[in-house]
Amino acid sequence: MSNPIDFYFDFSSPYAYLGSHLIVAVAEKHGREVRWHPFMLGVAMKGEKTFPLTQYPMKGDYSRMDFDRTARRHKIPFYMPVDFPKVTLAASRGFLWIALDNQATAIAFAQNIFEAYFVDNRDISDAEMVADIAAGCGVDRSDFLEAVQSSAVKAAFKSSVEDIVSGKKVFGAPYFVVDGEAFWGADRVGQLDDWLTEGGW
Amino acid sequence: MSNPIDFYFDFSSPYAYLGSHLIVAVAEKHGREVRWHPFMLGVAMKGEKTFPLTQYPMKGDYSRMDFDRTARRHKIPFYMPVDFPKVTLAASRGFLWIALDNQATAIAFAQNIFEAYFVDNRDISDAEMVADIAAGCGVDRSDFLEAVQSSAVKAAFKSSVEDIVSGKKVFGAPYFVVDGEAFWGADRVGQLDDWLTEGGW
Repeated sequence: MSNPIDFYFDFSSPYAYLGSHLIVAVAEKHGREVRWHPFMLGVAMKGEKTFPLTQYPMKGDYSRMDFDRTARRHKIPFYMPVDFPKVTLAASRGFLWIALDNQATAIAFAQNIFEAYFVDNRDISDAEMVADIAAGCGVDRSDFLEAVQSSAVKAAFKSSVEDIVSGKKVFGAPYFVVDGEAFWGADRVGQLDDWLTEGGW
Repeated sequence: MSNPIDFYFDFSSPYAYLGSHLIVAVAEKHGREVRWHPFMLGVAMKGEKTFPLTQYPMKGDYSRMDFDRTARRHKIPFYMPVDFPKVTLAASRGFLWIALDNQATAIAFAQNIFEAYFVDNRDISDAEMVADIAAGCGVDRSDFLEAVQSSAVKAAFKSSVEDIVSGKKVFGAPYFVVDGEAFWGADRVGQLDDWLTEGGW
């Protein structure tokens, strides 16, 4: 089996949501597995002294236009959430906890969280809402709520974010690493595709 | 004749240099003229509270890698300048002045300035060096040096930058506008190409 594609994302990032759709087709084409890694973009931004895209005076307006145009380009359903961005601790911790037991369920859960936020405009910072989505993926609802509040899961996620930001130097989302090569941004998925096709250049 | 592609750039921006190469092929393919507009990225950054890419702790290292990888991808000669970024007032004012007389000469001059910086690692903030490049394009060297120091050309460039940043809301480089549609970044030239092919979506 070839190396997987590591996909680093924040549930609150529009480009990560768009990238999550784009990477699936590319991974399939090259017979690569996608390993999903939620992290807290806010932690990376703090060190970089950057801000959520929409908070920049001019780049903010451009970005809102570009999210929408890029979604239409690839026929990905997308509605910019009114309340943006969100801190998505319950969803991120929940992903980690579900993934301990079943990667495929965790990915389905992540896709449903993204859809809840970027299609249905629901509040993915709300642990009860997130638990409903987990339950819809066949996860026990009360076990889920207990897990995302447990010290063990909290500590595991905190340590994972530290490793991703300080260790792996992931400063934005989506961020992909395959065969040791890093690609940042939904707009770099095409180059990642070319890289795998050509074996680098 | 179809609408031109407006290309906004700073002579000191690596992605603008790469974008200048990429846009030529796309413009030719679609029978569009490219209108070059130098501006001062620093002025836009001040309002946006952003910094030159290489000054971000993590994004800086990634960007240096990505400049190089993207240049190799498209077989564009590229050597990251040691002294970066540069304030390129003489080159930008000189472009405006040359363009008054001859657009094609101004574009050849701009391409040579980019090459001097990103291939030959020369100091494009030095007016004497910039005048040598102008002379190499058939422009009178002493007229050039006089022009870039004249109040009229200084004022014209200042007003052009204000219009680009405050009026047209250009916050980064390269920035392209065609048929009223804006595309920011060398990595959006592919989408611009698709947009022209499909007539939007």
